[in-house]
Amino acid sequence: MKNYKKIGCRNLSLRQLARYLKKHNNYIILTHASPDGDTLGSAYALYYALNEIGKVACVLCPEVVPSKYDYFARPTDHVSRENATVVAVDVADVRLLGALQEEFGTEIDLCIDHHISNTRFAKNLYLDDCAAATAESVYELIVQMKVNINDVTAKAIYTGLATDTGCFKYSNVTAKTHNIAAELYSYNIDAAEINRLMFDTKSKRLLQLEKMVLDAAEFHFEDKCMLLPVTAKMQEITGCSGTELEGIAVISRSIEGIKAGVTVKQTGDDEFKVSLRTFPPLDASAICKTLGGGGHKGAAGASLKGSLEEVKSMALDAVKKALEESYAGSDTAE
Amino acid sequence: MKNYKKIGCRNLSLRQLARYLKKHNNYIILTHASPDGDTLGSAYALYYALNEIGKVACVLCPEVVPSKYDYFARPTDHVSRENATVVAVDVADVRLLGALQEEFGTEIDLCIDHHISNTRFAKNLYLDDCAAATAESVYELIVQMKVNINDVTAKAIYTGLATDTGCFKYSNVTAKTHNIAAELYSYNIDAAEINRLMFDTKSKRLLQLEKMVLDAAEFHFEDKCMLLPVTAKMQEITGCSGTELEGIAVISRSIEGIKAGVTVKQTGDDEFKVSLRTFPPLDASAICKTLGGGGHKGAAGASLKGSLEEVKSMALDAVKKALEESYAGSDTAE
Repeated sequence: MKNYKKIGCRNLSLRQLARYLKKHNNYIILTHASPDGDTLGSAYALYYALNEIGKVACVLCPEVVPSKYDYFARPTDHVSRENATVVAVDVADVRLLGALQEEFGTEIDLCIDHHISNTRFAKNLYLDDCAAATAESVYELIVQMKVNINDVTAKAIYTGLATDTGCFKYSNVTAKTHNIAAELYSYNIDAAEINRLMFDTKSKRLLQLEKMVLDAAEFHFEDKCMLLPVTAKMQEITGCSGTELEGIAVISRSIEGIKAGVTVKQTGDDEFKVSLRTFPPLDASAICKTLGGGGHKGAAGASLKGSLEEVKSMALDAVKKALEESYAGSDTAE
Repeated sequence: MKNYKKIGCRNLSLRQLARYLKKHNNYIILTHASPDGDTLGSAYALYYALNEIGKVACVLCPEVVPSKYDYFARPTDHVSRENATVVAVDVADVRLLGALQEEFGTEIDLCIDHHISNTRFAKNLYLDDCAAATAESVYELIVQMKVNINDVTAKAIYTGLATDTGCFKYSNVTAKTHNIAAELYSYNIDAAEINRLMFDTKSKRLLQLEKMVLDAAEFHFEDKCMLLPVTAKMQEITGCSGTELEGIAVISRSIEGIKAGVTVKQTGDDEFKVSLRTFPPLDASAICKTLGGGGHKGAAGASLKGSLEEVKSMALDAVKKALEESYAGSDTAE
């Protein structure tokens, strides 16, 4: 049984992080629930790097790893809980460990993350909130440790970079992101195939659901707002659920002239998750706060109770108010 | 009146290209028809660079430049035809000059391009067929010429890189592409906003057309083939035409398990353009050749005459044959 000193959360520099990892020998690496390319890519890249220098390590994911990540997410060794160093990667809050929280939640030795909102639940924290992806930090760590990178490690890191940036599309990308991507091209990563799997491969059932959602799309407030309803029935008919539905919110903000895209996804009887995507001057976070939720300026959400019509009207009222405030006194605000 | 020596097409090195451009003083820069981000980005970046070193230059595009490029494609000076050096950028064939071919087609002094299929119609040619975009070469040229890059120039070059690579997604991307992108981040380019304009902004009418096309989608050959019909009526009802329809073919290959995506677009009475997208082992170019067309391994096309049903059946027969040959004797070829 380990005896943790209650010293709070210690911030590590990259050099300290490298030293820390070289010092210990047995690692359990945890990803967050609803695993994405960055938490998985970072976890596996770290796993391969630790293996490379003779450490014993395993990756634990609170859910089944989607098969599309098979090209780098291979079965890992078993590591006994005892004397293992527990590392959470890309995990901003201990609650995001999902099914793993109960077993590990209070005993995370190290967290490597890039979320500014990190709740400092780990004993040691390496946080670079300027990194576009945690995989950026894992790459820098591996370079710092002077550990060999092989093709699979490079694929895992590339996957983290690409998926957290919409393939280098979003505002979190920096020169460093591109420089690391350039370095990864010296390995055999087949980035085009990774990107096809990550971005351009849709299931037939998701296509069917998207059609239903688009048929039900509503335009409001002189087409400044698009609302996409994703009802329980649509999910039932098509068999689409969970992380599969993430792309819908992206559609809601992809139409010319739209300032606010609202996705209303049914999560239970009279329970809905509202996802809001906005463009300046609208602030999705502020709008969702009035609905009891929160998030970022461009993307936020809230959970609401009521019938579909009630929830739609609550969300639309909030958007309407924000539009009126932002475009007050200007007919040509566009 | 210029008197060209008929010496055929001379290949230039990057250094020779830089020297050539420093030597002359008045430039007319031509883009190709159906202008895209690379031909426009390359043309304007070259224009700004030539301006920077005191040259007089203008950009001519055979069509109206779409307003989404306004952030870098600004009105240029007028340059008289007489004594001007005519430069075509990203133009693989003189026919691609469209409306400008008649006036300039036989008198292109210089072409800067990255298409391996370049037909060598210019007197001088700088061709880097390993470049993901012509904008890559224009960037290297500007560095070679030691010309100052300003924010607008950087935006133009970034646009070329991003649009010709599907935002760094496709197999034409190299380490160099990412390295140049990294350099461009040192300017005020707002890449996220450029990418939003280029990739995530769809007109409402295109959304309507996509819905119609998806409603009419057909799946064939155990779901290995998806066929998307784009009829004249759909185009008429929605008002979508021309380059707006380019994205449809991308949808045809984005569904899991699809080996061949066929888009059949009506271009006249009983006239259709078939666009084919395939994954290995299928070869789109070989399939389209049997239909009298051609193209690349993963993307090819053909123009066919007949009714929609006739054209569909011709295209499907060709795909069926290729599927049978590729998956012969294997029920588990997937």
